[in-house]
Amino acid sequence: MGTEGELYYWDYLGLDALLASQQPISGGEGEPAHDEMLFIIVHQCFELWFKQILVELDDAVGTMHADTVPEKEMGRVVDRLDRIIAIQRLLTGQLEVLETMTPLDFLDFREQLAPASGFQSVQFRLVENRLGLDPEQRLTIAGASYTDVMSDEHRRMIEETERAPNLRDAIDRWLARTPFLRFGDFDFWAAYREAVDAMLERERAKVSEHPNLDDASRDEQLQAVEESAAQFETLFDAEQYERLRERGHRQLSQDAFCAALLISLYRDEPLFQLPFRLLTAVTDIDEGFAAWRYRHALLAHRMIGGKVGTGGTAGHTYLEAAARKHRVFRDLFDLPTFFVPRSALPELPAEVREQLSFRYESAPA
Amino acid sequence: MGTEGELYYWDYLGLDALLASQQPISGGEGEPAHDEMLFIIVHQCFELWFKQILVELDDAVGTMHADTVPEKEMGRVVDRLDRIIAIQRLLTGQLEVLETMTPLDFLDFREQLAPASGFQSVQFRLVENRLGLDPEQRLTIAGASYTDVMSDEHRRMIEETERAPNLRDAIDRWLARTPFLRFGDFDFWAAYREAVDAMLERERAKVSEHPNLDDASRDEQLQAVEESAAQFETLFDAEQYERLRERGHRQLSQDAFCAALLISLYRDEPLFQLPFRLLTAVTDIDEGFAAWRYRHALLAHRMIGGKVGTGGTAGHTYLEAAARKHRVFRDLFDLPTFFVPRSALPELPAEVREQLSFRYESAPA
Amino acid sequence: MGTEGELYYWDYLGLDALLASQQPISGGEGEPAHDEMLFIIVHQCFELWFKQILVELDDAVGTMHADTVPEKEMGRVVDRLDRIIAIQRLLTGQLEVLETMTPLDFLDFREQLAPASGFQSVQFRLVENRLGLDPEQRLTIAGASYTDVMSDEHRRMIEETERAPNLRDAIDRWLARTPFLRFGDFDFWAAYREAVDAMLERERAKVSEHPNLDDASRDEQLQAVEESAAQFETLFDAEQYERLRERGHRQLSQDAFCAALLISLYRDEPLFQLPFRLLTAVTDIDEGFAAWRYRHALLAHRMIGGKVGTGGTAGHTYLEAAARKHRVFRDLFDLPTFFVPRSALPELPAEVREQLSFRYESAPA
Amino acid sequence: MGTEGELYYWDYLGLDALLASQQPISGGEGEPAHDEMLFIIVHQCFELWFKQILVELDDAVGTMHADTVPEKEMGRVVDRLDRIIAIQRLLTGQLEVLETMTPLDFLDFREQLAPASGFQSVQFRLVENRLGLDPEQRLTIAGASYTDVMSDEHRRMIEETERAPNLRDAIDRWLARTPFLRFGDFDFWAAYREAVDAMLERERAKVSEHPNLDDASRDEQLQAVEESAAQFETLFDAEQYERLRERGHRQLSQDAFCAALLISLYRDEPLFQLPFRLLTAVTDIDEGFAAWRYRHALLAHRMIGGKVGTGGTAGHTYLEAAARKHRVFRDLFDLPTFFVPRSALPELPAEVREQLSFRYESAPA
Repeated sequence: MGTEGELYYWDYLGLDALLASQQPISGGEGEPAHDEMLFIIVHQCFELWFKQILVELDDAVGTMHADTVPEKEMGRVVDRLDRIIAIQRLLTGQLEVLETMTPLDFLDFREQLAPASGFQSVQFRLVENRLGLDPEQRLTIAGASYTDVMSDEHRRMIEETERAPNLRDAIDRWLARTPFLRFGDFDFWAAYREAVDAMLERERAKVSEHPNLDDASRDEQLQAVEESAAQFETLFDAEQYERLRERGHRQLSQDAFCAALLISLYRDEPLFQLPFRLLTAVTDIDEGFAAWRYRHALLAHRMIGGKVGTGGTAGHTYLEAAARKHRVFRDLFDLPTFFVPRSALPELPAEVREQLSFRYESAPA
Repeated sequence: MGTEGELYYWDYLGLDALLASQQPISGGEGEPAHDEMLFIIVHQCFELWFKQILVELDDAVGTMHADTVPEKEMGRVVDRLDRIIAIQRLLTGQLEVLETMTPLDFLDFREQLAPASGFQSVQFRLVENRLGLDPEQRLTIAGASYTDVMSDEHRRMIEETERAPNLRDAIDRWLARTPFLRFGDFDFWAAYREAVDAMLERERAKVSEHPNLDDASRDEQLQAVEESAAQFETLFDAEQYERLRERGHRQLSQDAFCAALLISLYRDEPLFQLPFRLLTAVTDIDEGFAAWRYRHALLAHRMIGGKVGTGGTAGHTYLEAAARKHRVFRDLFDLPTFFVPRSALPELPAEVREQLSFRYESAPA
Repeated sequence: MGTEGELYYWDYLGLDALLASQQPISGGEGEPAHDEMLFIIVHQCFELWFKQILVELDDAVGTMHADTVPEKEMGRVVDRLDRIIAIQRLLTGQLEVLETMTPLDFLDFREQLAPASGFQSVQFRLVENRLGLDPEQRLTIAGASYTDVMSDEHRRMIEETERAPNLRDAIDRWLARTPFLRFGDFDFWAAYREAVDAMLERERAKVSEHPNLDDASRDEQLQAVEESAAQFETLFDAEQYERLRERGHRQLSQDAFCAALLISLYRDEPLFQLPFRLLTAVTDIDEGFAAWRYRHALLAHRMIGGKVGTGGTAGHTYLEAAARKHRVFRDLFDLPTFFVPRSALPELPAEVREQLSFRYESAPA
Repeated sequence: MGTEGELYYWDYLGLDALLASQQPISGGEGEPAHDEMLFIIVHQCFELWFKQILVELDDAVGTMHADTVPEKEMGRVVDRLDRIIAIQRLLTGQLEVLETMTPLDFLDFREQLAPASGFQSVQFRLVENRLGLDPEQRLTIAGASYTDVMSDEHRRMIEETERAPNLRDAIDRWLARTPFLRFGDFDFWAAYREAVDAMLERERAKVSEHPNLDDASRDEQLQAVEESAAQFETLFDAEQYERLRERGHRQLSQDAFCAALLISLYRDEPLFQLPFRLLTAVTDIDEGFAAWRYRHALLAHRMIGGKVGTGGTAGHTYLEAAARKHRVFRDLFDLPTFFVPRSALPELPAEVREQLSFRYESAPA
């Protein structure tokens, strides 16, 4: 390896420590169960990737949480989030590797793991909190708080992050600051509302004038239009919106939700292209964790059957419920409910488009 | 392309027809919406793969449904099922490609698709039925049967397959024929029950004699052991088993369930190696479709928000429910509930092991 | 299926034609070989995805080939290319499905396919040409042109695309138009050259003053610095650059190559963020096809061994060579050769940064 | 976390050590480069997975290297190898995550890594040797042995494994012991040779009697048949086979190669089903590493351009060459060269089939 004192791959990666940190507990004096090594290594890789996800989240939150987010930094934030998405693919792949362990092989050391359990993954809880999972929406585990299974030190560390800046709040504040909602003489929401009303009116007319509908079908379809109209009301009306929020159906503030809608509808405007990519990325991340939890639930089921997990609660039903409830950006999934088709979108006034544009011109010679 | 009459790649693959079968409906006289082509091609690829899955399922059911299944054909059945698993990975990948379409782009042609919908995928229903999805466990769609959205011809075709041989029934019959459950003087179930009783007794003793448990914890843990004992009773007791089955908690017959347990526990015996692979493969397939449906539900949610799907029912909630309910081999996920650790497994008598073995000996010179 | 005349999923997708277009040729009067259906369907899905890739490429080339590319359309072009990347993942997945066919199963119908072969995939050739594969860099197949194996009609269609606008040319022209290379008093290339010279000087000093190097190592390392200096010369010197291009080592024009370098180095500037994403996307696409061809070569090898492919030429060696030679954006892989570290990058003058920026300000009330 | 002394997830996984072992070297006193953490974690995960691969390989070699391999253990060996295949998918996924780092970001810390490099991955060299990579076929690195870049301790450790039992040798010995090649009156090779001769004769006749071939084409095709005949000679003739082996075109012994052929051709016989799966698995592994190396070469190219890697040699060209040369089971890729179609296979005598079969019969009541 050449000259003394040169950097060596093994040392750089800390492999002495890393490769010594797999300590199977099965087997007593004898050989440990063959598959325990796999079990340890899969979970260690999960933890290494959670660490990396936290690094990216910290950086993204740091940027987005500021009072102004320079355009120059938007690309970087999107890159951080896109990296998390790439890592999520690995996380699912790791479940597939873990699944090469059969339930009977797991049973060779499963009992000895109790009460240790994935519920005790400190870093995963930090990820959830850093993303902005609402503590009040959290599932309890066998009736207790998710931090009850942690050591005191870890419990404190996690609880602190419940109050620290998180990605959802940062994005909420950033979205709510979006200009263009009202701009000089132009009031986007008034214009959008008009477009919506016109659309609903067209739908009503289409149903009423449909030549082949019997009365029952007509009534049913008209009712659907009115339900749609009522749904739009929850968007436009601050009080109704707030009520939805109190009941947990909305998480973003109304201003933020509306800005997200604006960006989604006019995403081709140069100034909205990266914001749109950012919204898409957080939606992907939310979807990625939901899909991963669900996959994890299926794995838990086939690995331990109907028995309780090593953490003392029914593993797979918890994980399945968490896939449904532990969502951070569900609002963004709901956005299309409030889309009007491109052809019916209000056109932005020239001065707004101008402000949203940038271009480079031939350089002065 | 050389000599007249030679086979030509384009013709062999029927590309004239194949590449002419994308007929976007958006755009009227003008250009169709850009993403409609993607939408069509993704769904056509789904249908091509469903066709292939049916080909493999038909072959597997054909073999397994026979009154005897020669060992020589077991490997082939496992290969057919493994291919389905490989295809399932593609199906998920195709959802990721579809997700490159944004909700706003979808809206460019979404309305025009109504009432056509994925609920009308005839082949997917055939796949479900061929696997053995219980018609009584099917979700209704807006209160109606899953076949109500089909053309008459397709409805008949699908309903026929509800009564045709399916993979679950074929595997049930094949499992139930497994010899070795009772073999000469050896009664496996008596032996297994003894092993279970001994295990439960050990667990009771461990709790009772634990030095550091307070009374409440002891009671709780003892209760857990008794619940486990009661669960085992549902396995051993034909009446209890049948009651579970009536309530939809079991789908396999008791004999089949027990044979699956035997094969899983003694899977290293030469004669059980391929049967074990077969059970693993159908578990994988069931898991694969559940994960795919769930992913599909997430996609549907972000694509259309809270609105109803083009098929007239709330797309994503249906798909999420189907991921939970439309399971065919859930029993195999539950098997580990009834495992005893390898160290506590009853040893098979020499003559049984002998029957389960095969070996090749040096050929007579 | 409800009311007469309504759109039906089966019809919308053209499933009558689509599902009738699998016509196995093996088996004569009897059953075709089981795996021929898989073989056909995999290849049909390849062709459907090639069609989709062409749709996206056409759109991207259409935009990029124009004399000016509005910022508003850049995001869309990147989306088109990102979709191609997503599709490429499927293409690799499809090879894995094809690999569930064993060589012996393939042999059941392989002979009958001759001389049809993947070499005859018209659409794949169109993809290559649309990307901008240089006709002169193409491998011959058994000494003949790649179009010799095509029908007359297809040969003409493909040859036309050799002369039609393609993605590489369009990107070359677009890059070469980048302003900012010279801007008012600021001459980027003069500044960059200074930065490079300073960096090389630092490296020379570091080697010369290194306390522990013996003479031989010092000479060796100094030579490496001079080689690096010479390499930079090929970038700065128009004649040297052109010579590299003539020998096929460069494909982009010097201006385009330099603009790509500028964008890569200052990618955080708002105006460069999407152009950088575009360059990354085409690099990914080039890499994706190279990896796919290589994987395809491995598959061909294990499927037919050392024998010639059905197209009459040694399949796997051709595919492996194509992975190496049929590259369209190799220049972009080479870019980092000419990077100087961020810390040594010339700072852009305020007026240039200003031009590269955009921002939105609080809207006038 | 409940009772003192209970097992805790964090401790079980050794997370204190694991999560402290990322020690970036960039940044000096200040912040390290953002992407160095990713770089470290990706490589640490590679090393953890290499450790797991070694665990599986050791177990597989341990079983296969014995003088007899009980059928009971075959399934387990196949499972070990299948797990390696699942891990290989992750390895490729990890490259995709690493690729979210851009070349410019890498440059922020790349220089400081020298001369540390992936060439120094001790465990990967152990994997290669444990698989059975022939030391004589190894590429040199800048003219030096692959162990020259290692520490003394690691060099010794690696060189020892060159002489230790490896998977290829173990499989060679196991294959060579296959009975059935000669069995009582039945000489498989004589029968196979007859089948081959008959096949070649049919091909000659087909060409000669083809009505539409001109003389040149006929000669060309007849020559192809003779080349095929000559190729078969290298299989049947021990001396020719040995000569191929000396030149590096074959690695398995002739007996082993022939047994692999027998198993592939008659894989449906019960006794050959698991051996066939084993051969398929090692072929998959060889393919997986080749594809991974190639992907790695592409990544190295785009990450550092034409410059030399940190290990002092041109990274991407080495990796590309290694993808081609560092193959362990290429013989198995070549097998299909010597297949005759199923319809032309010699039928096995009843007594051989009997020996290859096993079956279970209704148990004596």
